[in-house]
Amino acid sequence: MSAEPGEPVDTSTVIDSEQFRSIFRQHPAGVAVITAQSKGRNVGFPATSVISVSAEPPLVAFSINTTVSSWPAVEAADRLVINFLAEGQQEISTRFATSGIDRFAAGGWHPLPSGEPVIDNCAGWIVGDVISRVPAGSSRLVILQARSAWRGEGRPLVYRDRGYHRLVEYEI
Amino acid sequence: MSAEPGEPVDTSTVIDSEQFRSIFRQHPAGVAVITAQSKGRNVGFPATSVISVSAEPPLVAFSINTTVSSWPAVEAADRLVINFLAEGQQEISTRFATSGIDRFAAGGWHPLPSGEPVIDNCAGWIVGDVISRVPAGSSRLVILQARSAWRGEGRPLVYRDRGYHRLVEYEI
Repeated sequence: MSAEPGEPVDTSTVIDSEQFRSIFRQHPAGVAVITAQSKGRNVGFPATSVISVSAEPPLVAFSINTTVSSWPAVEAADRLVINFLAEGQQEISTRFATSGIDRFAAGGWHPLPSGEPVIDNCAGWIVGDVISRVPAGSSRLVILQARSAWRGEGRPLVYRDRGYHRLVEYEI
Repeated sequence: MSAEPGEPVDTSTVIDSEQFRSIFRQHPAGVAVITAQSKGRNVGFPATSVISVSAEPPLVAFSINTTVSSWPAVEAADRLVINFLAEGQQEISTRFATSGIDRFAAGGWHPLPSGEPVIDNCAGWIVGDVISRVPAGSSRLVILQARSAWRGEGRPLVYRDRGYHRLVEYEI
């Protein structure tokens, strides 16, 4: 069994984690930075697994591994902000993926009246209440009910195969 | 409260479904076609909500509204195939979103030894066993454990704001 390009695989065999990662690296996703206040401190991390679940009620979900350093803040948070990054905001995505720094020190964000930090000039953000953290293997599917939102004007930043991309629309 | 570009919103107000949809229309996503055999018949529909949940074990999730015509097949299926569409496969995405036609009649697919249809020349596919259908509002988060996979060579097809896009990598 192999996940190299063009090679079919034995459908009776169980896929291993490296083959699984190889497939998903090719799958594009918009980049979000998820922020919160946790014990009076700002926290934030990038996520490429944000999806709309339902519009009525407005529900959003993302996945997070419970072994990552941001998990305790997500586990404790009642409310999270999903900041959708815009074209050109690669530096912000990289900064929020960097360990051992104050990810908020370089600025480019402001606090909401309710305290949570939001990223300036992003493509939009959604503030949501955490309604569920569904166990799935060593990860959790975190489900939020959207409470408020802002839509920016930027086009989105896209991540695929360890690199940042922008979108080009097909001619009709 | 408004989700028009550039206008902030009152964070104390509950977002409505149209404002929520307006935000998510701007969020890019790879396009998949999810296929299955249901009661001896091939079924398939497009999905832009496929995410990796965990690599060990290899878990995938997507959301589906229980009011859509494909839901009964997903509710009944033990096994589903996630076909990640490639650049240029807009016609396939459109065909699998069309009601009242045989979505498989135009070809461009083949059956796996286990019976499920897979899309030819796509960016890759994953066959998975359904392990959970988590209720979330009127939708379900369907969680699959990947069993086998194939990685194609194509670049991905991306959907955003009611249109198809391709990716352009940023220069390093």
